[in-house]
Amino acid sequence: MATREATTHWTGGLNTGTGALTLDTSNSARFSVTFPRRVGEPEGTTSPEELIAAAQASCLAMNLAGTLEKAGLTPDTIDVSAAVTVNPGDGGLSIDTVAVTLRAEVGGVDEDRFAELAQQAKDTCPVSRALAGTTITLDAALA
Amino acid sequence: MATREATTHWTGGLNTGTGALTLDTSNSARFSVTFPRRVGEPEGTTSPEELIAAAQASCLAMNLAGTLEKAGLTPDTIDVSAAVTVNPGDGGLSIDTVAVTLRAEVGGVDEDRFAELAQQAKDTCPVSRALAGTTITLDAALA
Repeated sequence: MATREATTHWTGGLNTGTGALTLDTSNSARFSVTFPRRVGEPEGTTSPEELIAAAQASCLAMNLAGTLEKAGLTPDTIDVSAAVTVNPGDGGLSIDTVAVTLRAEVGGVDEDRFAELAQQAKDTCPVSRALAGTTITLDAALA
Repeated sequence: MATREATTHWTGGLNTGTGALTLDTSNSARFSVTFPRRVGEPEGTTSPEELIAAAQASCLAMNLAGTLEKAGLTPDTIDVSAAVTVNPGDGGLSIDTVAVTLRAEVGGVDEDRFAELAQQAKDTCPVSRALAGTTITLDAALA
């Protein structure tokens, strides 16, 4: 098992406050986050939605690599993009959809078999399963 | 509504391959990710788990600020840490637990009322609700 930590130090209220976000385990990045930039123009700042998109894209890329190898195939390149949308709702903001686009260069496989393996990789990806409160759509094709 | 995108370009297999991860909407960070560093020593690289921890910590921090304000309170500082654990399981890796620690400086509120509001903020946080496939624990107290 592996545990990874991140921290946000927030000062002030929702609309006027600012969060200092750090990736603590890797010490690989520091970010500033605000609510207005989360729901409006990002102006170069990340947001919870962008970080979830990053988790989904990176997890699915490696999970597809593993899924292809288990099926006896050799992945050459895999490109995964995730778009995460937050909507206003009755109970506040809601992250309803994660739209995944996946393109891969893989020898010795046809589109149908690849589509099947991509769907399997999406369904078994740990991040997909953690995000059970969202709908994840998949657009997968050979590059 | 707001949509945020991230992308991973992966080359190679699961254990030997590497992913180039970018936060595309904000253009605020580029990362390298690998499977061995995800489940072993991070060696300065992020992972899907660390990114989910970052999403959880930043979302909950701002959601608690808003929850306190709605209750007529003024948050001074809020510190949220999230630890996300991935475990090996029968069906592959599984992200089972998100352990959240929350400390806040808030005037005019006692521990019991604060604990109630912190729990409410955790339950209504969009990232908490998206992560319905995990168990999220909360350790909340006034600083």
